[in-house]
Amino acid sequence: MMNVVVVGIGLIGGSMARDLRCKYPGVSIHGMDANDAHLQEAIALELIDGIAGLQELEAADIVIVSIPVDAIVTELPKLMDAIGDNSLVIDAGSTKSEICRIIADHPRRRNFLACHPIAGTEFSGPAAAVSNLFEGKTNIICEVEKTAFKLQERALGIFSGLGMRIRYMNPEAHDRHIAYVSHLSHISSFMLGKTVIEKEKNERDIFDMAGSGFESTVRLAKSSPAMWTPIFKQNKENVVETLDEYIQNLEAFKQKLVDNNFDGIYREMDNANKIKEILKGIPQNNKDR
Amino acid sequence: MMNVVVVGIGLIGGSMARDLRCKYPGVSIHGMDANDAHLQEAIALELIDGIAGLQELEAADIVIVSIPVDAIVTELPKLMDAIGDNSLVIDAGSTKSEICRIIADHPRRRNFLACHPIAGTEFSGPAAAVSNLFEGKTNIICEVEKTAFKLQERALGIFSGLGMRIRYMNPEAHDRHIAYVSHLSHISSFMLGKTVIEKEKNERDIFDMAGSGFESTVRLAKSSPAMWTPIFKQNKENVVETLDEYIQNLEAFKQKLVDNNFDGIYREMDNANKIKEILKGIPQNNKDR
Repeated sequence: MMNVVVVGIGLIGGSMARDLRCKYPGVSIHGMDANDAHLQEAIALELIDGIAGLQELEAADIVIVSIPVDAIVTELPKLMDAIGDNSLVIDAGSTKSEICRIIADHPRRRNFLACHPIAGTEFSGPAAAVSNLFEGKTNIICEVEKTAFKLQERALGIFSGLGMRIRYMNPEAHDRHIAYVSHLSHISSFMLGKTVIEKEKNERDIFDMAGSGFESTVRLAKSSPAMWTPIFKQNKENVVETLDEYIQNLEAFKQKLVDNNFDGIYREMDNANKIKEILKGIPQNNKDR
Repeated sequence: MMNVVVVGIGLIGGSMARDLRCKYPGVSIHGMDANDAHLQEAIALELIDGIAGLQELEAADIVIVSIPVDAIVTELPKLMDAIGDNSLVIDAGSTKSEICRIIADHPRRRNFLACHPIAGTEFSGPAAAVSNLFEGKTNIICEVEKTAFKLQERALGIFSGLGMRIRYMNPEAHDRHIAYVSHLSHISSFMLGKTVIEKEKNERDIFDMAGSGFESTVRLAKSSPAMWTPIFKQNKENVVETLDEYIQNLEAFKQKLVDNNFDGIYREMDNANKIKEILKGIPQNNKDR
């Protein structure tokens, strides 16, 4: 029987628990979480069979660490101290450099596999967990060569069971690229929300005039500040760079408007239309949630 | 039998034609369009029964003008010259001030109702037309008092048939508010697409790392430059103002990152989370298209 401990039983950890329970009948899943209410909720939702302590980690076949990235940095070494020789630890952090650095010299480094499953929604907590969240999604694995071969195999078996595609990347490349295709989107959305909220103090006006386009661009502004603050902190340099470029592009667009350069405006949008082809390749969101 | 002429048989005009055919059995719908291929496509899709010329407008009960806003400004007066005394003309332009200004002194001003149905997708052309696009959506009507009472009634009957909610607003307020909740979202999305495309010349990297969040924020970057260039041109002053505020907010967020003010970063996101409550009031998009 497979023994799983999920550390942080929220959207990601809870969704993994759901899928593991479905794909591995008889699996035993226990949870650890700084939030007791979340643990009780996870038990009520049958995401986990019970609560785990550090002492349960020794017998764990797999430990899934799905907590905010600042908590990963402080907790991962302690978790690794407590696991057994045969335990596999994977994380699901949205940054990879600092996490890989903090664990680099740990005596059990070979029991750890650094992962970033590109899956999620703007919701959080155990109630946000859904089945098949990972189906067809990409899982980015960093420094795979630092993980014991048989534990790599165990991890890949599970990811395959969840329906994930695997991509290998070094932590620095991961953090640089993800700043563009994820972190910047979130800031863009948060600040769009802020701009409109500030202007339209009368919410009724937004309510009535906003359509699906607005909804789509500000969806990410619903995301959890507790999750995202440490991500921006850890990936600060890359994020600042993407913001600089984004702001420059917005300034240039604005200047074309001011200059009545509408041919230029047209070309800007026509070029950005290329995103159509790129988006065709992105696994579909669970749109009907 | 109701006689309808749709001028511009694309996403909006075509979707209205679909609903009218369904709600008003026996309705006769003819199309005018600068693009002959679109007219042929609209006939093949049974959106329209045939092609109309200016001479058909005299007998029209309703003329729906759903063309880019620059074309509305040049074509609307000519269309109004050709209609009958009992014809109702409505537009669907995303700007209202210049359109209302251009038609203000037309001898048939009372036959015109200025509208902006807040509905659509990022797609365009007759093939993008869908049924029930307007169900539950808001239709903003400007200067209603300038339209003949019996034609107001006719229009409201049709909008009610399409399932729309009505809001009345003056053209200047419309253009100011819509800059925030629609035009800015589009620019934000176009420039986000541009920033990522420029950085990630290797599209394969985007393809593999981008998730549903990115997809959501850049969806509008697929929108038609031919439609959006004249919107930004007509609403230039309001759009420049929203862009200034948006850029300032992005700069301030960046500065907090640079200053390691992560409490401030947290508060920014926590405040933007208020958008959750606002979004609850927005009519749902046709998400499964």
